[in-house]
Amino acid sequence: MSANLRIDIDRLMRRLRRLGEVGARPEGGVSRLALSDADKQGRDLVVGWMRELGLAVAIDAIGNIVAVRPGRGGGAPVMTGSHIDTVRAGGLYDGNLGVLGGLEVVETLNAAGIETARPLAVAVFTNEEGARFAPDMLGSLVYVGGLGLDEALATTAIDGARLGEELTRIGYAGEATPGWLLPHAFVELHIEQGPVLEADGITIGAVENLQGISWQEVAIAGTANHAGTTPMRLRHDAGYAAAWVATRVREIAQALPEQVGTVGVIKLEPELINVIAAKATFTVDLRNTDEERLKRAERMLQQALDEIARSEGVTVSSRVLARFEPVRFDAGIAKLIEDTAAGLGYSSRRMTSGAGHDAQMLARVCPTAMIFTPSVAGISHNPREHTEPADLEAGANVLLHTMLELANG
Amino acid sequence: MSANLRIDIDRLMRRLRRLGEVGARPEGGVSRLALSDADKQGRDLVVGWMRELGLAVAIDAIGNIVAVRPGRGGGAPVMTGSHIDTVRAGGLYDGNLGVLGGLEVVETLNAAGIETARPLAVAVFTNEEGARFAPDMLGSLVYVGGLGLDEALATTAIDGARLGEELTRIGYAGEATPGWLLPHAFVELHIEQGPVLEADGITIGAVENLQGISWQEVAIAGTANHAGTTPMRLRHDAGYAAAWVATRVREIAQALPEQVGTVGVIKLEPELINVIAAKATFTVDLRNTDEERLKRAERMLQQALDEIARSEGVTVSSRVLARFEPVRFDAGIAKLIEDTAAGLGYSSRRMTSGAGHDAQMLARVCPTAMIFTPSVAGISHNPREHTEPADLEAGANVLLHTMLELANG
Repeated sequence: MSANLRIDIDRLMRRLRRLGEVGARPEGGVSRLALSDADKQGRDLVVGWMRELGLAVAIDAIGNIVAVRPGRGGGAPVMTGSHIDTVRAGGLYDGNLGVLGGLEVVETLNAAGIETARPLAVAVFTNEEGARFAPDMLGSLVYVGGLGLDEALATTAIDGARLGEELTRIGYAGEATPGWLLPHAFVELHIEQGPVLEADGITIGAVENLQGISWQEVAIAGTANHAGTTPMRLRHDAGYAAAWVATRVREIAQALPEQVGTVGVIKLEPELINVIAAKATFTVDLRNTDEERLKRAERMLQQALDEIARSEGVTVSSRVLARFEPVRFDAGIAKLIEDTAAGLGYSSRRMTSGAGHDAQMLARVCPTAMIFTPSVAGISHNPREHTEPADLEAGANVLLHTMLELANG
Repeated sequence: MSANLRIDIDRLMRRLRRLGEVGARPEGGVSRLALSDADKQGRDLVVGWMRELGLAVAIDAIGNIVAVRPGRGGGAPVMTGSHIDTVRAGGLYDGNLGVLGGLEVVETLNAAGIETARPLAVAVFTNEEGARFAPDMLGSLVYVGGLGLDEALATTAIDGARLGEELTRIGYAGEATPGWLLPHAFVELHIEQGPVLEADGITIGAVENLQGISWQEVAIAGTANHAGTTPMRLRHDAGYAAAWVATRVREIAQALPEQVGTVGVIKLEPELINVIAAKATFTVDLRNTDEERLKRAERMLQQALDEIARSEGVTVSSRVLARFEPVRFDAGIAKLIEDTAAGLGYSSRRMTSGAGHDAQMLARVCPTAMIFTPSVAGISHNPREHTEPADLEAGANVLLHTMLELANG
């Protein structure tokens, strides 16, 4: 009976566009930083839709919104969801697709009069992007007990505001205890934010794991000196040392399976054409799906830093900016997503998430996996972020039938 | 009679320290960027001293200051001089020694009542450092006709200001035509800015030639993308490309005799830890005493740029910021400096200048050489730049007797 059930892509697109009007930037894209006025308006809009769909809405003390559709058998719900905060200049889909895709699943079931055995739930997690408050994925991290509520509420924004005060100010400091509703399973629908699905011409990604992340900032102290008169053998060039390490980061990334490595920031001082740099500061972003390999990459980086300190006669120090272990999602749900896509006639592949998501936090407390849809040109965190409506439709249909199977199976 | 004549090192040191107070940085060193307010104050101070010494001061249209002490025979003067602009964080001696050493020569002759056959002149050239306006040695270049006045006045500073407007603003857009006074000979006293004299334990450098300089700015355009989700093979990383070229610059410098190479500026965009750089801009400073070798270094750099454009799939463009062929100074004046040092009891050696100096421009129009004094640890363009007073004294005494010989001989 429900095998022919499909979501309504026009309804989903209307909600995505309507939410995208909240915080829309005159120059394009959306700016809805966590707990800003725009975030409050977006939350109000989504909570209104949840209530219209008959869902029971609860707000917890960190501002997470959990909306429940009862099941005939009760018990732990099958949960979906994501976030609606954006980076400073984001797009329509990142996060929003997961929340509004969940509402579309509920409306499709409501319209067809279908009751599930387990309850269903749609969650909106606070401050996933980390663009205003660090760390990112803060709401879901608190939900699973990975960060204490008091510590989270004391977080200071880049604009100086305190998270707890901002929550109260926008009316989303709720009564519920974070983590009050433990899911039976969690499935998050999200755009890929990378080029893999588009490059391979595939519609659905069954996300089976998520990269571990190691962020470091490296500072190198050399000696400023005249670029013309200082013989090469007498130099302690912080700029050269930084450049050499950046090329080693590339070699490390190419040497280890599944490894990526990026130096996105390099700053030199005094930054003059004819002065050997006295100081260089740069960042290293290392990611791998395997914790042992990620640790090996970190050791190789440290060896490179030791080597350049010795050979160039410079002082090297580094500090950790962020460190998350890789996450392995539930193999059974990843297989279910693949099978569901196949049953609906969509191409699919198993894949890894290179970005962090709320699902990685939920994976700590329940079986979890993710559904990815293609991102045109791999672009996200950018007003040009785009996914074709047909792909959004496919993603939401796979979410619908994956949730049905988890709730009834 | 004049054989026993010596300069007054205490008087010279007082002027050096007094000028060093103008633009002094709270954290040490001096910041007197060309045509800044501090440069104006420094110029006013020096012009005041020139007038006190009875010199006839003329300012030309590019802001060069030329102060003349008459000679009994008239004719073309023996000129000395240098510059008083500094890098952003410079020291007391670079440039200033050449100007104030010249004034010390004049004051010594005035005090002893000595008249020379030819006139003497002390010049202060505009924007020698190139730290605010490119190219460096701009004032002396215009003075010898190597750069048109209008083009020079249209030069834009790193802070966006136009050179001509800044000259007018600080009151140093003069009436004289640059090059109005052609010297009989030019001798510049300068700190070495390198480690050679100190390492050899020698007091005076008789500078017989000067490295050629090739400055380029390279811009690399890649593709901004997510540092986690973009596989290494699909990257067009402008930051990596810039770092790789910087390591090649080091290899080029090590491969060719007498070659030095420096990347002192690297700027990445968007400069975010988790975004592959879309754009990199960096500078390359190549120098050699031999023009053919310098050209070879430039070809090797171009090959490196072509190679990275191909292998990384990035677009590379470069523009020349400055290009000067190596300069051979006048062998007779270099020998005169050596002989003068010997006659005064100072050790000396022939040597090459690794830095650019105003003297290299004057060498285009008259017999020219330079006198170097040791730099402690070879450090310059740095608040820690230092030369021992005894060495400054030796240099100014050699300047005094070299100018006397040239003016009377």
